[in-house]
Amino acid sequence: MKIGVMGHGPIVEKCLDAISKVSGSQAIAIYNRPVSAKEGEAIAKKFHLEKCYTDFEKFLKDDTIDTVYIALPNSLHYDYALKILNAGKNAIVEKPFTSTVKETEHLVQIAKEKRKFLFEAITTCHLPNMKALKEHMKEIGELSVVQTNFSQYSSRYDAFKNGETPNIFNPEFSGGALMDINVYNIHFIVGLFGEPESVSYFPKKAENGIDTSGIAILQYPNFACSAVAAKDSESKGFAYVQGKDGTLKINSHVSRCEELIITIGQTSKTINLQESDNHLVYEFESFTKVVNEQDYDTCYKWLEHTRSVMKVLEKARKFAGILFPADQQ
Amino acid sequence: MKIGVMGHGPIVEKCLDAISKVSGSQAIAIYNRPVSAKEGEAIAKKFHLEKCYTDFEKFLKDDTIDTVYIALPNSLHYDYALKILNAGKNAIVEKPFTSTVKETEHLVQIAKEKRKFLFEAITTCHLPNMKALKEHMKEIGELSVVQTNFSQYSSRYDAFKNGETPNIFNPEFSGGALMDINVYNIHFIVGLFGEPESVSYFPKKAENGIDTSGIAILQYPNFACSAVAAKDSESKGFAYVQGKDGTLKINSHVSRCEELIITIGQTSKTINLQESDNHLVYEFESFTKVVNEQDYDTCYKWLEHTRSVMKVLEKARKFAGILFPADQQ
Repeated sequence: MKIGVMGHGPIVEKCLDAISKVSGSQAIAIYNRPVSAKEGEAIAKKFHLEKCYTDFEKFLKDDTIDTVYIALPNSLHYDYALKILNAGKNAIVEKPFTSTVKETEHLVQIAKEKRKFLFEAITTCHLPNMKALKEHMKEIGELSVVQTNFSQYSSRYDAFKNGETPNIFNPEFSGGALMDINVYNIHFIVGLFGEPESVSYFPKKAENGIDTSGIAILQYPNFACSAVAAKDSESKGFAYVQGKDGTLKINSHVSRCEELIITIGQTSKTINLQESDNHLVYEFESFTKVVNEQDYDTCYKWLEHTRSVMKVLEKARKFAGILFPADQQ
Repeated sequence: MKIGVMGHGPIVEKCLDAISKVSGSQAIAIYNRPVSAKEGEAIAKKFHLEKCYTDFEKFLKDDTIDTVYIALPNSLHYDYALKILNAGKNAIVEKPFTSTVKETEHLVQIAKEKRKFLFEAITTCHLPNMKALKEHMKEIGELSVVQTNFSQYSSRYDAFKNGETPNIFNPEFSGGALMDINVYNIHFIVGLFGEPESVSYFPKKAENGIDTSGIAILQYPNFACSAVAAKDSESKGFAYVQGKDGTLKINSHVSRCEELIITIGQTSKTINLQESDNHLVYEFESFTKVVNEQDYDTCYKWLEHTRSVMKVLEKARKFAGILFPADQQ
C-alpha cells in the first residue's frame, strides 16, 4: 500500500509512525491546504515522506499513491472520500466515518462500483485484546449489563469555555463528544453484539447545542449497554461486561484495550496480546493485509459494521436533538 | 430508643448487631409469624432479646417498645408501618421504603398527624464517607457525568432461574433489582443532586416481568447520571463523579461507601471516616440521636428525601413497564 495522508494533527503523526512499523505499507506523500503548508512540511521532513502537496488536484493525480488516509475535520470526511474514490484510489477515513448514515451508504456504494477499498480508521475493532474479549464472551454466561467509559479532557475545552469554537465543539463540523470519542465505545459494543434494538442519548450540551459529554444507552433484546464519554472531564477509561457467571473487564479506554481481565467466580486472569506501544499499528496491519490480498469481502464486512455504528450515532444524535448541516442534505 | 424488630432475614441480624453498638438504643423484642417462630427464637437467643412474639396484636400492644424496625418483604412495608404508627409507635422501614409514592405520602402524613418518628433504613445517606463526598463536591468543578454500579449476584437467582419465584424476584412482593439494590444508587444520586428532571430505566426483564438488572438514567439540567444494578451478575461496585477539574470515586458499593478517592489533576487523596465494620451502625446512630433529641425537623427532612427517591423509583418502573399490585390501589 502506497499511502498519501491528508491533515496535520497529532493523529497524522501517530498514524505515520504506525505505517512505518507495518511491512507492506509505506507513506509517501502528505497533503495540506496552503494555510497549513508549514505543518505539512515539518511532518514530511520528520517522517521522510517523498512528497509534500498543497495543491489537492495534483495530490489526487499522483499515480504513485494508491491509498489516501483522511484525517480532516469530521464534516469533510464524506466530500474528500468521495473525491478520492472517484479518482480511483482507496480511502482510509478517520473516525467518525461520516456525518450521517446516508453519506456512509453513498461512499460504500461508490467504493463497490469503483472496486476500491474503503476503511474506517478506528483502533478498537482491530486490537488483538478486543478479539480476545470476543472469544471469551461465552465464558461469562448470559449477559446482564455492559458499561463503558472513555473520558478525556480536551485540550480545546478551555478555549471553548472562553468563547472560541474549535471544530471539535462545533456542530458545523460534525463535532461533539458522541462523534469524537463515544464512537469508540459504540464500536466496541456494536462489535460485540451487533446493531441494538434501540438507542437513547443523554448528553451535557453547551449553548451552541454540541454535546461535551454524555451517556448513550444501547438496548438489546435482553440486556442494555451504557456508553459514557466526555471531553469536558477526565476519567480512567474502562469497559465492563457482566454476565451470569463472570465478568470481562478492559482496564483502559476501549480505543486501546490495554488489558483484558477475565473473572469467573473467585478466579481472575489477565490477558494482553498487544506488544506495540502504538495501538494504531493493528488497524494498519489489517488494512494492509486486506489490500495486498485484494480481500474485498472482509473490507465490505467491516463497512457493514461501520454502517451499523453510524446508525447508532445518528439515532443517538436525533434522540438528543443534536443536528448537523449534513442532516439537511 | 427501645426497639422491636419484625422479620428474620440476614439484615435483621446485621441490624441487631448495629443497635447493640449504638448507645441510647436497645433492641428488646422480635416478632415473626408463627410459621417462622423458630427463626425468631434463635435470633432472640443470639442477641439476648427479652421478648419473642408470634402474635402481632400482642407485639403491637407492648408498651415497652417505642420503635419498630420493619424488615419484611417490600410489599408489606406500607401496611405494617401504618399499623405501627397508628398504634402510637415510631417506625423504621427497610429500603425500599414502600411500593409507591402514594403509600410513602400517606405514611408521612400519618406520622406527622400522630407526631411519631418515621425513618427509611438506608445506609447510604448516613455514612460519614458519603457526607465527606458531598463536602468535596465543589472541588471537582462543573459536573459532567456520574456513574454508579451496585451488582450483587443474588443467592436466590439460581432458584428463580429454576422456576421458583422468591419474593425478591416477584412483582407481587414489589421485588426486582431496581427496588432492592438500585435504590442505593438512587439514594446516592438524589442525596447529592436532589430530584432529577427526568428518569429513564433500561432493565433486563425476566418472563414474569421483573427486572433482574438494569440501567437507570437520572437527568439533571446540565448533566446525567447512570445507576446500574444487578442481582443476576456480580461486579466490583463503584460510584464515579466526573467534574471539569477532577473526579470523586467511591471504591465500593454505595451501600457501604468504603473509601472516597478525590483526584484533582494528577493528585489523588483517599479519605475514610468509617471505622465500624458494620455499616448499619451509622444509620442507627442517626435515628437514635433524632429520636432522643425529639428532632422532628430532621426526621421530616429525611422523609422528603425518601419521597424524592420513591418518585424516581416509580418513574423508572413506569418508564420500563414494571407494575406492582400496589400501583392499582
